[in-house]
Amino acid sequence: MSWLDVTYRVRAAPAELDAVATAIALEQSVEVPAEVIRDAFIAENIVGRVEEVHRGADGVHQVRIRLATATTGFDVAQTLNMMFGNSSMHDHVELVDVEFPPDFVARFAGPRFGIQGIRELLGADTRPLTCAALKPQGLAPERLAALCHTLTLAGVDIIKDDHGLADQSYAPFAARVAACQRAVARAQRETGRTTLYAPNLVGSPRTLSAQAQIARSEGAQMVLLAPALVGMPAFAELVSEELDVPVLAHPSYAGAARVAPPFLLGKWFRLLGADAVVFPNFRGRFAYSEQVCAGIARNARAPWANLRPALPVPAGGVIVERSRELVHFYGADVMILIGGSLLKAGDRLLERTQAFVAAVHDSAAEIVPVAAATA
Amino acid sequence: MSWLDVTYRVRAAPAELDAVATAIALEQSVEVPAEVIRDAFIAENIVGRVEEVHRGADGVHQVRIRLATATTGFDVAQTLNMMFGNSSMHDHVELVDVEFPPDFVARFAGPRFGIQGIRELLGADTRPLTCAALKPQGLAPERLAALCHTLTLAGVDIIKDDHGLADQSYAPFAARVAACQRAVARAQRETGRTTLYAPNLVGSPRTLSAQAQIARSEGAQMVLLAPALVGMPAFAELVSEELDVPVLAHPSYAGAARVAPPFLLGKWFRLLGADAVVFPNFRGRFAYSEQVCAGIARNARAPWANLRPALPVPAGGVIVERSRELVHFYGADVMILIGGSLLKAGDRLLERTQAFVAAVHDSAAEIVPVAAATA
Repeated sequence: MSWLDVTYRVRAAPAELDAVATAIALEQSVEVPAEVIRDAFIAENIVGRVEEVHRGADGVHQVRIRLATATTGFDVAQTLNMMFGNSSMHDHVELVDVEFPPDFVARFAGPRFGIQGIRELLGADTRPLTCAALKPQGLAPERLAALCHTLTLAGVDIIKDDHGLADQSYAPFAARVAACQRAVARAQRETGRTTLYAPNLVGSPRTLSAQAQIARSEGAQMVLLAPALVGMPAFAELVSEELDVPVLAHPSYAGAARVAPPFLLGKWFRLLGADAVVFPNFRGRFAYSEQVCAGIARNARAPWANLRPALPVPAGGVIVERSRELVHFYGADVMILIGGSLLKAGDRLLERTQAFVAAVHDSAAEIVPVAAATA
Repeated sequence: MSWLDVTYRVRAAPAELDAVATAIALEQSVEVPAEVIRDAFIAENIVGRVEEVHRGADGVHQVRIRLATATTGFDVAQTLNMMFGNSSMHDHVELVDVEFPPDFVARFAGPRFGIQGIRELLGADTRPLTCAALKPQGLAPERLAALCHTLTLAGVDIIKDDHGLADQSYAPFAARVAACQRAVARAQRETGRTTLYAPNLVGSPRTLSAQAQIARSEGAQMVLLAPALVGMPAFAELVSEELDVPVLAHPSYAGAARVAPPFLLGKWFRLLGADAVVFPNFRGRFAYSEQVCAGIARNARAPWANLRPALPVPAGGVIVERSRELVHFYGADVMILIGGSLLKAGDRLLERTQAFVAAVHDSAAEIVPVAAATA
């Protein structure tokens, strides 16, 4: 039998820490008081075990708990339940990390394209990649398509819908995807370079299926999905059962969870099939630290069983002038995403985007080889 | 046109509060700097508006922001996105409440049974209701069925699966549901009273459909679902498209969100179709306050457009001796859920559960009429 090795950060008085750790182990497994467990099979194979208690100096501690793999049924929703179901309602507990056993990981395909697959679609072997966003919402399809045309002419690798673009009256999904994909295709014929358009799929499971079908029939070569909005089980099922293009995962609503971003965005989204992961960059509009961002990128790219590496996509208030710094920080296996700040250029969007693309490409020559950077 | 009226709790220095409020209004609508908005339609109809800034004394303030209903596309996932997508990644922002406009609410059916529908199934007009849980996980189907038999003999109204019971090797879903439903039916014939069994549905959308089909064919008259585990859009779609029995919603993983429980569990889950809502009771295993619990119950039961009231189900470390106190606190339109502490009784489970049922029924005679309590 095998176990998930789950690390929680816990606030507790030192004298109570052992009792708190035991309570988490029970809460996240059998959810009954210890004395109710009279069955030897359950005591040995089902009850969570406190493996290690690491006392912190400041009342914040780390607790490692083993949860039986059998309790997950190898199901995404049930695994969330075991990792952090009831403990999510305990303010003093945060989920920091999970080490999954090989027999668990083997049930998940992870990214089907990964970094290498995205690079092959783009014909970009080793250089850092660029991404721009279609926004603001409220623009009609033809206005979004005009943005696509300009951004493609400027040589951006991937154009993604803003994650706010859904199926709204002023820009219905089908009309938007058709217009944008046509605009990208037309501009590509002028540039001779490849640009991928990633429409945002959002909705209930049936809506997602219908949108995936439209995206495919319009020829979209990538999609954007926010796992925490559509539901992580629905995300994983859609990726494995209905999509045949790379998936760019967006963190919308995911930050709501008291779950450490390196685990949630870097490791868990990758396990569920994200080929690339958008996350808030340090010193941008969001208060993620350099350490957290480095942790997300490390978990997305690190060697991990049978799972392909996923592409880190820092975003959220990134500006052209920081492109070089970010390529140096993350290494070449990265895609820099600039959204709103490019659009500030107004009539000079083409030139500003060209400057962005050039800055990212040029900085690649300066950095150490990828293998060394990610080791 | 109409607007969602969204209240956030914000930590900010007083001098920065106005700027922070404006930033939230942009982040949760167009997600670009204000100067990018050059389009009159977008400026008037799409950009979020700061309606009110209520300064707190302690650096914690309340901000009311109006978000255009049109941006939601009347979709569950996209509405989550608009209410708290990117702001969920901002540690200084919490989602407190949302007032939905009538044209939005009219698109949702809410609970199909509600309190009255559940009462009719049970033949229990006005008294408070009782609920027990099947646990711990690890028990084989026949052991769970034996618990069902005893709990039904004791006269419990509803027996729910522990939310940890999924589709595991030691108690596969189909075998468990069949065994438990049969045991409840057999004991009912002895008591002549009605007890409903609510199996837990958990998994990806396709798994949920298959489980709903099995539950129906076995004759289960209620189901348990955790919206935050299965994904809220999948939850809402399953309720409206595939279920024809009352739905008991469980808060697993939902507490992870920095979203106020009275809104999330009491109002939002009700809008999505929960007929009854389990939540952590005050002074139990979870640190929810009396005020928060009263707020959940109020939102679940208050008159609200076309939506039926949902049944509040306090739980989480409740013991038999507190039954009377809780009926007095919540009024008669409540279902008291006791899980682990009943099971501590071991061989005396029948007697202990009978005492629970009697305590709840007896306390009903002491309280003021429901209409007065919930007014």
